[in-house]
Amino acid sequence: MKELYDYIEQNQEIYLSLLEKFCNQPSISIEDVGMEDMAELVKETLIELGAKVELISTAGYPVVFGEIDNQAAKTILFYNHYDVQPVDPLEQWESDPFKTTRKDGRMFARGVVDNKGTFLARICAIDAYQKTYGKLPVNLKFMVEGEEEAGSPNLEKFITSNEDKLQCDGLIWEGGSRNIEGPLQVGIGVKGLSYIELRTKGPRTDLHSKNAGIVTSPVWRLVWALNTLKNENEEILIEGFYDDVVPMTQDDYELLKTMPYDEAKMKESWGIDHFANNLTGVDLKKRLLYECTCNICGLVAGYTKKGSKAILPSEATAKLDFRLVYNQNPEKIADLVRSHLDKHGFQDIEVEYLKGEHPFSTDINNPLAKAVLNSVEKIYDAPPVVYKNQPGTSPLYIACNTLNAPAVIFGAGHDASQIHAPNENMYIKDFINCAKLTATVLETFSKE
Amino acid sequence: MKELYDYIEQNQEIYLSLLEKFCNQPSISIEDVGMEDMAELVKETLIELGAKVELISTAGYPVVFGEIDNQAAKTILFYNHYDVQPVDPLEQWESDPFKTTRKDGRMFARGVVDNKGTFLARICAIDAYQKTYGKLPVNLKFMVEGEEEAGSPNLEKFITSNEDKLQCDGLIWEGGSRNIEGPLQVGIGVKGLSYIELRTKGPRTDLHSKNAGIVTSPVWRLVWALNTLKNENEEILIEGFYDDVVPMTQDDYELLKTMPYDEAKMKESWGIDHFANNLTGVDLKKRLLYECTCNICGLVAGYTKKGSKAILPSEATAKLDFRLVYNQNPEKIADLVRSHLDKHGFQDIEVEYLKGEHPFSTDINNPLAKAVLNSVEKIYDAPPVVYKNQPGTSPLYIACNTLNAPAVIFGAGHDASQIHAPNENMYIKDFINCAKLTATVLETFSKE
Repeated sequence: MKELYDYIEQNQEIYLSLLEKFCNQPSISIEDVGMEDMAELVKETLIELGAKVELISTAGYPVVFGEIDNQAAKTILFYNHYDVQPVDPLEQWESDPFKTTRKDGRMFARGVVDNKGTFLARICAIDAYQKTYGKLPVNLKFMVEGEEEAGSPNLEKFITSNEDKLQCDGLIWEGGSRNIEGPLQVGIGVKGLSYIELRTKGPRTDLHSKNAGIVTSPVWRLVWALNTLKNENEEILIEGFYDDVVPMTQDDYELLKTMPYDEAKMKESWGIDHFANNLTGVDLKKRLLYECTCNICGLVAGYTKKGSKAILPSEATAKLDFRLVYNQNPEKIADLVRSHLDKHGFQDIEVEYLKGEHPFSTDINNPLAKAVLNSVEKIYDAPPVVYKNQPGTSPLYIACNTLNAPAVIFGAGHDASQIHAPNENMYIKDFINCAKLTATVLETFSKE
Repeated sequence: MKELYDYIEQNQEIYLSLLEKFCNQPSISIEDVGMEDMAELVKETLIELGAKVELISTAGYPVVFGEIDNQAAKTILFYNHYDVQPVDPLEQWESDPFKTTRKDGRMFARGVVDNKGTFLARICAIDAYQKTYGKLPVNLKFMVEGEEEAGSPNLEKFITSNEDKLQCDGLIWEGGSRNIEGPLQVGIGVKGLSYIELRTKGPRTDLHSKNAGIVTSPVWRLVWALNTLKNENEEILIEGFYDDVVPMTQDDYELLKTMPYDEAKMKESWGIDHFANNLTGVDLKKRLLYECTCNICGLVAGYTKKGSKAILPSEATAKLDFRLVYNQNPEKIADLVRSHLDKHGFQDIEVEYLKGEHPFSTDINNPLAKAVLNSVEKIYDAPPVVYKNQPGTSPLYIACNTLNAPAVIFGAGHDASQIHAPNENMYIKDFINCAKLTATVLETFSKE
């Protein structure tokens, strides 16, 4: 691949200029800014590569769908998005978020990593491959949506409605980054999510608190109920909660050991002096990547302003999210909470399932994962760190499960890329490496 | 006392007209409306009775202090207030709250019971006594404050600074009402209050909830800590909490049995289908009047709006009020909470004592209480119901403890008087009876 790598390096300015053009075009989905122009630019870029392109409408912004059919044996589907996060707080940016700036080997702009940089590293790889070797070794498909930063509300429907069109042998998913110490992080799975709301009601209106004692407090009911869900060792006490969890293997433990995690830096950044339950080392990483969580995102009842108001509140609400590991089911978790509350005498507490994502994990030995993992060390200084369950969530399950194909996550960011925050930035070196990796993966996968 | 009762009845229009004048003068302390004019009216009225009057300034509105010295053996101090609650929601009033209206034997106006009606029933009694019999049988003092509806923020300082001036043998306190079924409620004590805030802090800012599990959640800490404070049987689990409580006597139980409590009506009014722990009858009244409470007035953490936001909140706060019974100390309760949390491993939870009131109870056999209780049946159709611990709170302890004098609470209201609410109203019959009772108490007490 030496020729191809050289081509990318010699022509990097062409690709970086295209990235600047992408970044300088605002495309904030949740503020409805620049979305149409951005979709058009994605379309033109894919056509330029030789793809057959269409904008497929959804209930929200259209998906740009592209296809390069090389009559090859295998097909890769790229998932990317053309929308970016809002720029607030603008005053914390050191440069215009929509006027790409370069400094000390980095580029700064909103979306320069998430997801325009990662997307254009794919484009760069494909273009360079074609320019160097002519025909691509695989067929390619592109699914570039415009609502990822809004939570992909229409993606599931898009995928299930276009199942035939999207058939592939593997997905290369956006996201992922390089650890600041060196190694590239490659994701082969993500945790799932079950988000629920618990609500309790007591008297019709808030009462004078002199009546506490004779009127059942919805707030106390909620506190007592929550207390039955998890203990101080972070053990989730909901009957059946762990039933579907697949135990960690020795390989999983080996993967964990290779994963860097700068504990001191994270503690400093978060302003904490120890991690939960004083975890460190492998135990800490295990908790982060392989264990489920039961978290209270919000809690509210009664009088919450300054000072004292003596009332017995008429209602109380808690919002909970559970991060799930492979094989757990988000809706089933909500049902388990319901059964648990009933069993513990909390039939009066309402449970509403607000949203969920299935966890997803690709077998580390599938051809696409192997192609990626075997290619990284040729380009980066160190072997990759494999994340079997990235702690965040994405709609990976919907895509992979519907299309019955594995997925791999890697990208052009790094740990301090400030995605979703002011001064989003990418190392140019990472962009180039990400492009080289992508090209190498196409080549390697075609031969697996 | 027949002559005096006749005098009151024959001249009732004079007294009701004066009450109308009082009610038609707005005096909303927390909105700073009409306060100066109202204080002036109180002053004139007391002077008219023959009192020596001064307005004593405080950090807020002045206290109108009056004194009628008859060289008698005993002195009674009346506590009243000249401010009223705001009138919101105005649209729910069926008449102008500051234009007194009469209908079906009742008068409607803001303050017509609380506290202008009750105050003027005292005035009526004193005036009628003097007009009927000449000299009063006791010396009188008046402490009429302007900030009761604002929580009496300056009353404690006023009392301790004017201890000599306020010396007396007993206090007749504002408040109290007649049960809608008939009997007058006479209070000889009130519950106390300890109001605290619990605060926990976690990471410096809210975090993405993917980090739940490795970062200790301040919200869970608060939930777990709260759970150790009280169980579902309403038993407060704080070590030492009940140590100072004086056990109920057989007399207390007998008093409870006489107390009417319309359970069906209260449940309907509050929209509940049962009381806490399915209490009814004497057990319910015991809980309301003789037991302490541990109530959560407010609770807040993280994301509390509509929908889902997946964060691990950086802090959590709970506001708690404890209603205390005789002999408990509000500051000590806050200290006990601190020790309890420490003992249970919650040293990280901050406890702030926001405010408190000592409980207070007058011996039912003291001369003033006896004078009141023995007089009621002469005027009302039924014997009084005695409240040894009214479930609400007032600054009774400050006054009685500083002045080392007993207090008794009775007034001109009834259970549906709508105090603090739209359409506040008083039965004219209750006003007249309250005046008669006051005059009778002066007479009886002078002979005890």
